[in-house]
Amino acid sequence: MKQKKYFLSEDRMPKFWYNIAADMPNKPLPPLHPATGEPIGPEALAPLFPMELIEQEVSTERFIEIPEEVREKYLMYRPSPLIRATELEKALKTPAKIYFKYEGVSPSGSHKTNTAIAQAFYNAKAGTKKITTETGAGQWGSALSYACALFGIECEVYMVKVSFQQKPYRKIMMNTYGANVYPSPSNRTEAGKRILEQHPNSNGSLGIAISEAVEMAVKDDQTKYSLGSVLNHVLLHQTIIGEEALKQFEMADDYPDIVIAPLGGGSNFAGLAFPFLRNKLQNKKEVRAIAVEAASCPKLTRGKFMYDFGDTQGLTPLLPMYTLGHNFEPEPIHAGGLRYHGASVLVSQLLKDGLVEASALNQIECFKAGQLFAKTEGIIPAPESNHGIAQAVREAMICRETGEQKTILFNLSGHGFLDMAAYGDFNEGKLVEHELSSAEIERSLAEIEASQPKMAI
Amino acid sequence: MKQKKYFLSEDRMPKFWYNIAADMPNKPLPPLHPATGEPIGPEALAPLFPMELIEQEVSTERFIEIPEEVREKYLMYRPSPLIRATELEKALKTPAKIYFKYEGVSPSGSHKTNTAIAQAFYNAKAGTKKITTETGAGQWGSALSYACALFGIECEVYMVKVSFQQKPYRKIMMNTYGANVYPSPSNRTEAGKRILEQHPNSNGSLGIAISEAVEMAVKDDQTKYSLGSVLNHVLLHQTIIGEEALKQFEMADDYPDIVIAPLGGGSNFAGLAFPFLRNKLQNKKEVRAIAVEAASCPKLTRGKFMYDFGDTQGLTPLLPMYTLGHNFEPEPIHAGGLRYHGASVLVSQLLKDGLVEASALNQIECFKAGQLFAKTEGIIPAPESNHGIAQAVREAMICRETGEQKTILFNLSGHGFLDMAAYGDFNEGKLVEHELSSAEIERSLAEIEASQPKMAI
Repeated sequence: MKQKKYFLSEDRMPKFWYNIAADMPNKPLPPLHPATGEPIGPEALAPLFPMELIEQEVSTERFIEIPEEVREKYLMYRPSPLIRATELEKALKTPAKIYFKYEGVSPSGSHKTNTAIAQAFYNAKAGTKKITTETGAGQWGSALSYACALFGIECEVYMVKVSFQQKPYRKIMMNTYGANVYPSPSNRTEAGKRILEQHPNSNGSLGIAISEAVEMAVKDDQTKYSLGSVLNHVLLHQTIIGEEALKQFEMADDYPDIVIAPLGGGSNFAGLAFPFLRNKLQNKKEVRAIAVEAASCPKLTRGKFMYDFGDTQGLTPLLPMYTLGHNFEPEPIHAGGLRYHGASVLVSQLLKDGLVEASALNQIECFKAGQLFAKTEGIIPAPESNHGIAQAVREAMICRETGEQKTILFNLSGHGFLDMAAYGDFNEGKLVEHELSSAEIERSLAEIEASQPKMAI
Repeated sequence: MKQKKYFLSEDRMPKFWYNIAADMPNKPLPPLHPATGEPIGPEALAPLFPMELIEQEVSTERFIEIPEEVREKYLMYRPSPLIRATELEKALKTPAKIYFKYEGVSPSGSHKTNTAIAQAFYNAKAGTKKITTETGAGQWGSALSYACALFGIECEVYMVKVSFQQKPYRKIMMNTYGANVYPSPSNRTEAGKRILEQHPNSNGSLGIAISEAVEMAVKDDQTKYSLGSVLNHVLLHQTIIGEEALKQFEMADDYPDIVIAPLGGGSNFAGLAFPFLRNKLQNKKEVRAIAVEAASCPKLTRGKFMYDFGDTQGLTPLLPMYTLGHNFEPEPIHAGGLRYHGASVLVSQLLKDGLVEASALNQIECFKAGQLFAKTEGIIPAPESNHGIAQAVREAMICRETGEQKTILFNLSGHGFLDMAAYGDFNEGKLVEHELSSAEIERSLAEIEASQPKMAI
């Protein structure tokens, strides 16, 4: 029988995260202070994050050691398996070899746990008593709730309202880990109140929820804030995914031609792709890396590369990134984790430099791919993860046309056990596509372009 | 760092199931024909099952080879990990070593997939077009739906009504795999109609759902029936769990003093415990094997060993087992998989002979243990699985008293991602215990005792 799953032994779990900034031909532009337009220093982030995370945020070291305490907790579920999707290949009648890295084995069900544990550890070490955060579909909130339980930190989660309503089980899960969860926009913060005044029926967005969580953290010395994606240190922690996959492809005596992952803020994609991109940037091995976004939130394919805020209320520094404008409010698609207006600075720079590719997919195509995956490989994928699967199916079907036996790798970033309502809508034909007009995007971008700081791009 | 997880490589996955009948000092009594009171032959089961499964049902061979096609599908998720619950041990301050075998890695989320794949395979081989079945909490129905999708068989599931209402996501999951799901009692069968006439508000039970599924299978030549527990061949397929665990304990250079698993029909318990009991029956190694039932459905601890039907309507042969009477309708506890009136013939005989132990636990104790497990080991367990955890916690706390460093193994038979509503009730203090009176049990048993066949026990 063909080997199906590749497990690394625990003693071979990587001991270092990979910082792609060290290998990028064009280094990422600095974050700017919104008032002065000047680059901000690490100290500006001190109210939000413990110093060790800030140091990682600005580091140019190629490899950063994973603390032993973090590795010990990683062993709860890592190394995660690399799996050959043999049944999916058969169903597609493709000569392509399809592999997926399965991050759904983590306790909270997605890759988010990789950075949640690291962030909770550094916070605990720095004496943080409480962490606030935002969550979209709830994957990130669950991961951080669990990580906070492990390190004895209080956890307060602002959950995008539409997801709070669509996914009640996520709230219960976070409560079970001991966290407090509030639908966002809420009345607990000034940011939330402002939004509710203007839009009493707001569905919420990640940008709004970030504003709320940041506001609560800034208010109190012993409270810090934690972000589940976008920032350099978050992407860094996720690279353990790709580092493991590199070793597992050695075991399989294979190497991917194409690496695919969904993109919300960028950590899912970066986590899998960056270690493979190292080989590309160092001219060792070629690879196509494709970030897959939701067609209803297409910052990579239809947004602009410029300075924008990470949140809706403009509380964060300005970041150089592909964005749809920080006021952009995406349609309430089920892939809540992809409903973010911008993309990480690192991924944005790589895309601008032509080193990675982007693809935007409609949700019905993604759910179809997800259902086919469920019927063949058994695992019900998270709606976000369906975007990666759908792109892999597209590439595999091209191979069927051309006869090429390419090796395709995608990140199955999480399972969909808590997203069954979305599958219910899909099964009953209730999913609709929201056509996003160019005028809408231009309008949203125009606001930002008007206020670009002087050293704009 | 201490090793946390023990993974067998795919090539070391067991190639044989273990049939404990070969080693039992007292062989199980035969099933009887309800009308004649005479032992029934294999041919009596032919309308329900393909012949290869019937042969396994009555086999006395010690080891039965797992077909290559089944092993190939097992590789989707097997071998499953053996995990040391290091964080739980710390929280309990116990000198005991606690391990769990984690069956929640299976696509449908529980151990049920082990027999579902085997049964679907033998049915496909025999030309079966459609399989009917019952399901309680939905673990079994999901597993069979997936297995049927793998082998191209139609699947029709009768789901106990209270679970159908409590767990809507399970239905969607089965639909996503392509199955049709009906709440039971339904109007689709004579059995269902009879129940609804007498009890229009019936919560349903596994016994009733079995009656419905059996009735539908008997009606049609190309339709067979499939049971998720109780029968010998089902228990047989689950022994791969314990066979793997035996090898994994060799890797860990350890051996369990106590083996624990929840018991609904018996396959969860048998799957983990039987291979360890082989060493006990062959006088090689001692072990305590504890089956944990729900206090509200206590056939092992408060029922009687006698001949009874497997279903409510009396469509099955009479089986010699510990039972509360086939009309017993347990309270609608969240651990739906434990709401079955009887216990498997094999487990019943072993209990009668003093070779295994039984324990009955209340649901609040079980949910408390489950939440502690979630906060420490991260995984949210299925309500059924919480019974195993709670018993393991009891044993570990005894070790804390005595200072003994016992090795405890329990079967984490499934995760609880689809049971979050139950945790919601628990978090909000809404769970109540239902005191089951002795009079109620006696009443239920009296009906059965009056109609025992002549060669009764």
